[in-house]
Amino acid sequence: MKHLLSTRDLSTEDIVSLLAMADHMAEINSRAVPKVPALRGRTVASVFFEDSTRTRLSFETAATRLSAEVMTFIASSSSVNKGESLRDTIETLSAMGVDAFVVRHKSSGAPQQITQWTDAAVINAGDGWHQHPTQALLDAYTITRNFKELNSMQGRTVAIVGDIKHSRVARSDIDVFTRLGAHVVLVAPTAFLPSSLDGWGVTTADSLDDVIGAVDVVYMLRIQRERMDAAQMPSLREYSSLFALTPERAARMQGHALLLHPGPINRGVEMIVDPSLVPGSRILQQVTNGISIRMAVLFSLLGGDATTTLQNGVEA
Amino acid sequence: MKHLLSTRDLSTEDIVSLLAMADHMAEINSRAVPKVPALRGRTVASVFFEDSTRTRLSFETAATRLSAEVMTFIASSSSVNKGESLRDTIETLSAMGVDAFVVRHKSSGAPQQITQWTDAAVINAGDGWHQHPTQALLDAYTITRNFKELNSMQGRTVAIVGDIKHSRVARSDIDVFTRLGAHVVLVAPTAFLPSSLDGWGVTTADSLDDVIGAVDVVYMLRIQRERMDAAQMPSLREYSSLFALTPERAARMQGHALLLHPGPINRGVEMIVDPSLVPGSRILQQVTNGISIRMAVLFSLLGGDATTTLQNGVEA
Amino acid sequence: MKHLLSTRDLSTEDIVSLLAMADHMAEINSRAVPKVPALRGRTVASVFFEDSTRTRLSFETAATRLSAEVMTFIASSSSVNKGESLRDTIETLSAMGVDAFVVRHKSSGAPQQITQWTDAAVINAGDGWHQHPTQALLDAYTITRNFKELNSMQGRTVAIVGDIKHSRVARSDIDVFTRLGAHVVLVAPTAFLPSSLDGWGVTTADSLDDVIGAVDVVYMLRIQRERMDAAQMPSLREYSSLFALTPERAARMQGHALLLHPGPINRGVEMIVDPSLVPGSRILQQVTNGISIRMAVLFSLLGGDATTTLQNGVEA
Repeated sequence: MKHLLSTRDLSTEDIVSLLAMADHMAEINSRAVPKVPALRGRTVASVFFEDSTRTRLSFETAATRLSAEVMTFIASSSSVNKGESLRDTIETLSAMGVDAFVVRHKSSGAPQQITQWTDAAVINAGDGWHQHPTQALLDAYTITRNFKELNSMQGRTVAIVGDIKHSRVARSDIDVFTRLGAHVVLVAPTAFLPSSLDGWGVTTADSLDDVIGAVDVVYMLRIQRERMDAAQMPSLREYSSLFALTPERAARMQGHALLLHPGPINRGVEMIVDPSLVPGSRILQQVTNGISIRMAVLFSLLGGDATTTLQNGVEA
Repeated sequence: MKHLLSTRDLSTEDIVSLLAMADHMAEINSRAVPKVPALRGRTVASVFFEDSTRTRLSFETAATRLSAEVMTFIASSSSVNKGESLRDTIETLSAMGVDAFVVRHKSSGAPQQITQWTDAAVINAGDGWHQHPTQALLDAYTITRNFKELNSMQGRTVAIVGDIKHSRVARSDIDVFTRLGAHVVLVAPTAFLPSSLDGWGVTTADSLDDVIGAVDVVYMLRIQRERMDAAQMPSLREYSSLFALTPERAARMQGHALLLHPGPINRGVEMIVDPSLVPGSRILQQVTNGISIRMAVLFSLLGGDATTTLQNGVEA
Repeated sequence: MKHLLSTRDLSTEDIVSLLAMADHMAEINSRAVPKVPALRGRTVASVFFEDSTRTRLSFETAATRLSAEVMTFIASSSSVNKGESLRDTIETLSAMGVDAFVVRHKSSGAPQQITQWTDAAVINAGDGWHQHPTQALLDAYTITRNFKELNSMQGRTVAIVGDIKHSRVARSDIDVFTRLGAHVVLVAPTAFLPSSLDGWGVTTADSLDDVIGAVDVVYMLRIQRERMDAAQMPSLREYSSLFALTPERAARMQGHALLLHPGPINRGVEMIVDPSLVPGSRILQQVTNGISIRMAVLFSLLGGDATTTLQNGVEA
């Protein structure tokens, strides 16, 4: 594995192996000094053309805990203002000695393009509606570790609720969850579903009430208010009445069922319930797990030919 | 002490003890390599919802010198833009493994609120008109060290000049200075004084000329031009004529008297004199001392249950 | 050498010596762990009043590889918004313990001014139309190392193409290149040449076609669209037809000739050719060399009285 652009770059064995490595990273994170020399001398550049402080800090914290140097490039504060092209930006940073680029971009496929212009590893941290692979890995990690079936989601049903059509999180999650054996049901109004679901291996439901009492995981997507207008939805209120998680709906979740959300939460839109009052909520655990997953991904991509190995670099 | 939200969280003994620890930190800062492993493995997050690069860099430098990792979250470049709530921001960063939050916020009480949402220590780096406790500590440190009476300001008179009503610095300073035994005189037009001063233990003066020749410390507050309008002051010029520090007024200061200012200076408004020409100016010394005080505060809050101790973590 | 404000601060011997030290730094940069303790305990502050992420990251990477601490101050996100003066900013940061300021400013002479207000070393990272000395050093480094004549550019002809009049890069390059023995020919329309070139030791040409087949180095300057309007050039198209590097012109370069550009490239303006298709392009090598040159400059300014020496600090 040279890059992580899409969950489709990963075999199911790769996924299982990254989740296992994340267990190891979680152990490191529980130490008094959560830092190992595994990536000493390596440089990880965060290149964010779309604002996402939480995702950026998660990757940068992961890199720091492995002792990599971090270089931060945020488009708004950069020469992108001067009309510098994506290619020039990447080639320039690469010439400064970057070993991995963590890229967030509003255009689907930008991280793939970037691989043409650098020898460094490229990690997709979210590109348009396309993919957000580390989100799917941390979601699968959170679900499998909570259900204590480390290599499989066999027999589990996950409801993904919201604007599936425009969601990179949904695309990545569906691929990983189904390959780990889960049944995924998409809960959304028609306007928020892709025009065709052939080959996705999922079912759909047009009411959250129909499924909430029967699923193992309720995965709420963030609703973008601007999409709501663009999609010519009748109204935000009508959407919320059918698809938002309310205290009443949360109370109908099964005792063992989990509540996940990729953040940031849009309170009063898709989340009318306070998640801290939902016993099954693992939303903050997702954030914690995100660090471990991103450490595993960075180490997998950059640790291979390091002078340090997993043994003396991570364990020590 | 779990948090530092207000000077009122500190007993007078706590204050004296923090000032003594700052002496120790100042010695570290004088070394060729001003860095100790005291907080290795700890993460300090600067969370600034209001712009203040100098305060942020002071705290971050302090954290770095104690070998803590620093995480920077500036609201304007963050998902606050997406309507993410203060609570979600704090809970998310906390889930990434933050040990202390350094918080600047335009709303009084925000740091207090934040303590509900995290197990991390919370340090108030300025909240609305309420408090700025580390500023008061570094001011007290600067005054006591200059006067070489380390535990007391007994017998000293401090004039605080400017917009007392809207100043968190004034509120914090008054509390600390009076508890250390100083007499504080507030010098301001009526519109810039709180409606009641009952229980503050201070006196007031409506002319800087009346007091400047008699006090031990002249503490000039920054005047916010926008407040000047809101307060319907007759005019900035009228204010300056009565309350600004001019070369003539500075010349009337006693030979041993100190000039302090929390910065940034508003030249031509409250400071018409060039402070570098005032022999008693300790304004830049305040900045230097700010690093030592913030190291002392961070170590007090985070060093207690560290595997390292003051002895082997800070001394070594 | 206490500061680096202009190439004129450097004797020719200084220049040759810095290029030699950059060879040493390049060797460090080729290691598995490109980091040495040479500047441990020192603090380098980037103070950018004009946006240039690439230059800032180059200096900060150089500082980090020498183990200095980095403090970043970007004017737009700072109290400059509050009307804080340049002087107050520098004095304040200096009081926090800065050993070197790396300054980018839109006003010529700002770095020189700054030396009055601090004991720290000041490095000019570009001031108005005046100077950009580290750019000239990295350009000379790139040229001499490619031509394998390490201490001289004797017998080489360099064409500098573009808006010479408003270019700090051109001013710095001309001084360094001519002192190393090169012949410099300025290629520009009259409006883009200084009113007098007395004492510059250069020649001029008003057509790129006249010189491109005969020079050893083609140095393309970035064209600022806003300058184009201000200079009342007939049109961007007319400029490009005469002075832009096209594939046809690039094909006429001598086999051994080098193509340089300080970046960021303005594709379709001064660069109509894709530089990655020009065999002589060393534009990305300039970026790589920039790190080594800046390490050499930082070490020269800060390493002298360090407890560490070149021997045990950089070599080890």
